[in-house]
Amino acid sequence: MASYTVYFEPLGRREKVDSDQSLLEIARKLGINIISMCDGRGLCGGCKVQVVEGKTSPLTSKELDNLTQKEICQNYRLACQVRPLSNLKIRIPQESLSTPQRTQVEGLEIPVTPEPVVSSYELKLDPPSLSEPEGYAEVILKALKNCQRVGIEVSRQQLPRLKSLNWNIDAIVRNGELISINPPSTRKLGLAVDLGTTKIAGYIVDLEKGETLICKGMMNPQIPYGEDVITRISRAGENKKEAKKLQALVVKALNQLTKEMCAEIRANREQILDAVVVGNTAMHHLFLGLPVKQLGLSPYAPALESSIDVKAREVGLKIAPGAYVYFLPNIDGFVGSDHVAMLLTTDLAKFAGIALALDIGTNTEICLADHGKLTSVSCASGPAFEGGHIKCGMRACEGAIEKVRIFNGDVDYHTIGNGKPVGICGSGIVDAVAQLYLNGIIEGNGRERDHERVRETENGKEFVIAGEEAGCDQPVTITQRDVHEVQLAKGAISAGIQVLLEQNGLSVSDLEKIIIAGAFGSYMDVRSAIPIGMLPPLPLEHFEQIGNAAGMGAKLALISKTKRKEAEEVAKKTSYLELAAVPSFMRIFAHATCFTSEWKF
Amino acid sequence: MASYTVYFEPLGRREKVDSDQSLLEIARKLGINIISMCDGRGLCGGCKVQVVEGKTSPLTSKELDNLTQKEICQNYRLACQVRPLSNLKIRIPQESLSTPQRTQVEGLEIPVTPEPVVSSYELKLDPPSLSEPEGYAEVILKALKNCQRVGIEVSRQQLPRLKSLNWNIDAIVRNGELISINPPSTRKLGLAVDLGTTKIAGYIVDLEKGETLICKGMMNPQIPYGEDVITRISRAGENKKEAKKLQALVVKALNQLTKEMCAEIRANREQILDAVVVGNTAMHHLFLGLPVKQLGLSPYAPALESSIDVKAREVGLKIAPGAYVYFLPNIDGFVGSDHVAMLLTTDLAKFAGIALALDIGTNTEICLADHGKLTSVSCASGPAFEGGHIKCGMRACEGAIEKVRIFNGDVDYHTIGNGKPVGICGSGIVDAVAQLYLNGIIEGNGRERDHERVRETENGKEFVIAGEEAGCDQPVTITQRDVHEVQLAKGAISAGIQVLLEQNGLSVSDLEKIIIAGAFGSYMDVRSAIPIGMLPPLPLEHFEQIGNAAGMGAKLALISKTKRKEAEEVAKKTSYLELAAVPSFMRIFAHATCFTSEWKF
Repeated sequence: MASYTVYFEPLGRREKVDSDQSLLEIARKLGINIISMCDGRGLCGGCKVQVVEGKTSPLTSKELDNLTQKEICQNYRLACQVRPLSNLKIRIPQESLSTPQRTQVEGLEIPVTPEPVVSSYELKLDPPSLSEPEGYAEVILKALKNCQRVGIEVSRQQLPRLKSLNWNIDAIVRNGELISINPPSTRKLGLAVDLGTTKIAGYIVDLEKGETLICKGMMNPQIPYGEDVITRISRAGENKKEAKKLQALVVKALNQLTKEMCAEIRANREQILDAVVVGNTAMHHLFLGLPVKQLGLSPYAPALESSIDVKAREVGLKIAPGAYVYFLPNIDGFVGSDHVAMLLTTDLAKFAGIALALDIGTNTEICLADHGKLTSVSCASGPAFEGGHIKCGMRACEGAIEKVRIFNGDVDYHTIGNGKPVGICGSGIVDAVAQLYLNGIIEGNGRERDHERVRETENGKEFVIAGEEAGCDQPVTITQRDVHEVQLAKGAISAGIQVLLEQNGLSVSDLEKIIIAGAFGSYMDVRSAIPIGMLPPLPLEHFEQIGNAAGMGAKLALISKTKRKEAEEVAKKTSYLELAAVPSFMRIFAHATCFTSEWKF
Repeated sequence: MASYTVYFEPLGRREKVDSDQSLLEIARKLGINIISMCDGRGLCGGCKVQVVEGKTSPLTSKELDNLTQKEICQNYRLACQVRPLSNLKIRIPQESLSTPQRTQVEGLEIPVTPEPVVSSYELKLDPPSLSEPEGYAEVILKALKNCQRVGIEVSRQQLPRLKSLNWNIDAIVRNGELISINPPSTRKLGLAVDLGTTKIAGYIVDLEKGETLICKGMMNPQIPYGEDVITRISRAGENKKEAKKLQALVVKALNQLTKEMCAEIRANREQILDAVVVGNTAMHHLFLGLPVKQLGLSPYAPALESSIDVKAREVGLKIAPGAYVYFLPNIDGFVGSDHVAMLLTTDLAKFAGIALALDIGTNTEICLADHGKLTSVSCASGPAFEGGHIKCGMRACEGAIEKVRIFNGDVDYHTIGNGKPVGICGSGIVDAVAQLYLNGIIEGNGRERDHERVRETENGKEFVIAGEEAGCDQPVTITQRDVHEVQLAKGAISAGIQVLLEQNGLSVSDLEKIIIAGAFGSYMDVRSAIPIGMLPPLPLEHFEQIGNAAGMGAKLALISKTKRKEAEEVAKKTSYLELAAVPSFMRIFAHATCFTSEWKF
């Protein structure tokens, strides 16, 4: 039996293997968690991979059933069906990986020329002497062009360092201000943060190379003060102490996150010379300690829309003493800088056609680009896609059902970590509802029909996805109420898209590209979202799932001042459309709560 | 008997009086404390006044003895000798007033066109609406030219005010930044501070009119941590906690002083839109929280020499939320921004000749101007002139002997408040030593001779100024040690002046003007300072005593940005001469400790 080397990208794993094993078996041996709901029977189509280099066993009939013509042309295969006939290079697409493994690689880098806001100058200085007893600060300023002042924190904390460094230093300058003094050849790091209502993602970037060195996520510690932003801002708006507490919580979390990331890359926090933060307008206000009361009252005006540079220590962020935090501009009370960051990542303003970009979350922001004209809306899509308000809903972690297929009444599913199911996460919920609808188990209006797996409870009907095999006392089910929650959520998104199209005199068929950002949006199966009418019925090639575009945008603005300027311009040229002010909105929304792949616009 | 009205300026007091009273008696009735050591006998010449308007009784022979020809031509009279023969307008020169009354009027204003760094714009704004839900900050920015950003403190604290003010506001802008939002037509105030080692002087100024509204002094609360700056910086340099305590103490004091001044003029602290602080380099560093260790070690380099703008809240100063504090530049470790402020006040850089300016204190800074070329030195003149290290020394307050004359062995003196003497203050000490020397009671080398009022104690000889009549258990005396202290102090000043002359190839006779600043310097009698060799033997007309020039300079820089710029330029063009590095200094100093009015240079 022949033996070959198989290389899996983008994970970068390599293995010497026997030719009688399927790629699915090989991947599992390596600990790569490729999704397979039918357990390698070639039925679910979940284990799609792309053969980049090398010879393989021929296509099977099961592959012909599960792959499109286009996929076949692009060398897509089902990992459970194919065996190596030579050394192979295999690409595993994002959607074939189970959630936790995707997260590891989600920081797909958009290459951008490093052009950070801070500059570093290596200096060998002459110390002050009795005949020339200059100030320490002035010795540095004299040696630098384009630097006129010394940050007060640098003067306070770092000037004595000059002597201990023997007057050989790296001087870090930002817009004419000396913001840090480091030993020569210290790494120049930057911090990018996506401050989500639910999750905070941090990235440490090498500012000179433009590379992400580490990325780490954590839950937003403000959650106990309200799952949604409205609850949080109404608490903070009523009570200044609460506002301060919310601010302190998020800063403490960021400091902790930064500390942990620094420890992993053996850096210290003083090496972080610049920071960029994005988030929705409420997160922005709470983080900066801005007044929020008016954000919750019509006309929902932010205190501050524009971008802002504040001293890191002004907000309590512990990085280089004189460093600044740059917060990208907001567009409006409901469309924040995370949306701007997404627009920056997607380059939507430069798209020479008609496209949509969505960031799906508790609030879903949608931008329609029509040859450079940008209009954004914010839809209250609710927490269903994050597992909220769903009976067995949970976040995408170990034991969550993340994929569901129903074949002839049999339910196949995939759990994160391959263990026993304990609940169902966002992508699983969309899959389940779509499969129920496609199999006629729920009607267009959402009503669950009778079925061998549908049972009556005191709270109404529910469809059992995982019964006795479930890893918890209760079976994992989709209840009638869950279905209604999904209807409201998908209806909000669909209505947002349709109002945008209507107001711009366009229809679904005009859309050339649909970009879906955000964690859930990236893991969601577009093939499930289309039949239930959550996304427009367009060929799959039109869709692009790009992961955390807000975090990516923050990184771009951190690495490149050109990108930072671009973000400012994008924010200015994007107009906000208030859905509540559009007369047709309620009617469109009501219609959009039905399951149907037919769109009005 | 006729009755006339007498008006005293600059105090602005007016009284209807009988024509048989002397002006001295009239003034005393009004509570104006004109100095008279001979109790109205026409002997001491202390009660000099100038008749500005009206007819008076003719000159007496005692006046002819005590007034110069020039003074007589300028209508100077002795208040004890002259009676009104019509309504009168009388000017009381500074030197004829007792210290506390001088202080009340010392804020002589130098007129300068108001041109503050902050501008105010009265705005009537359109609030955000559902159709245009702009940010609060952006509504203001849109209405302003030359304003690009909103201070974070304003965003945090003041934006909600827009609604309550019905969107009619005064917007306060500083260098393109919105630093405060006030109700329309709010007073625009500024704060100037002279941060002395011993005393803090604060001034509140109307920024639009350029007028001082109030001025108030207090002791520097850092005194318990060291009377002199060296002790304070060595404590702060060793221990960061101590440094923070010293910083906090002075800021707390400033906040208290500001609060009290505001209360007196019925203002609130938020109306203070700008602040300027001056002080010696150590006070500057301690106030700003800069490292001070190196200030106490050769080459005594400051951390920061240049001027600096910091947010008021950054140092803890409670004024308008977004306001800045501007600290004038230092020249060197030993010549601080108070010296720069004095140079600004005196316009020394523009003097078309050769002049000296001195600010006498524990450290005496002296600047020599030679046709626009400025050189400054700092002399360790010690605390003697502030009553320190002097047996009966005290500050200039109630009961302090402030003037001394010896006539034929009899001692006449004047106490502040006219009560019983309890000690002697700086001007009294200089007077006493000069009178002792001129009456041959001490020799040129400082040795006290035998005299009926000189007594032996276990600590050496002492001259009794006030014996049984003293208001304390002990008589008020000048000891042999006191005389030595004065020798060291005056020697330091004299040597400083002489080294400056020597290094610039000049001599005393080249000096066209000598400006004496500072509290003590203004109350000191130049006629006493010359014979003991503390000041050069030049005609009295050459001397100008200008009071708190540092505080005045701070006010000028507060009111006018042109003056602020001038200060920066003056600081740059003034070169510092380190006395310890001048070979001849010790020799000149040793010589200068003797009493003599003859100068080497």
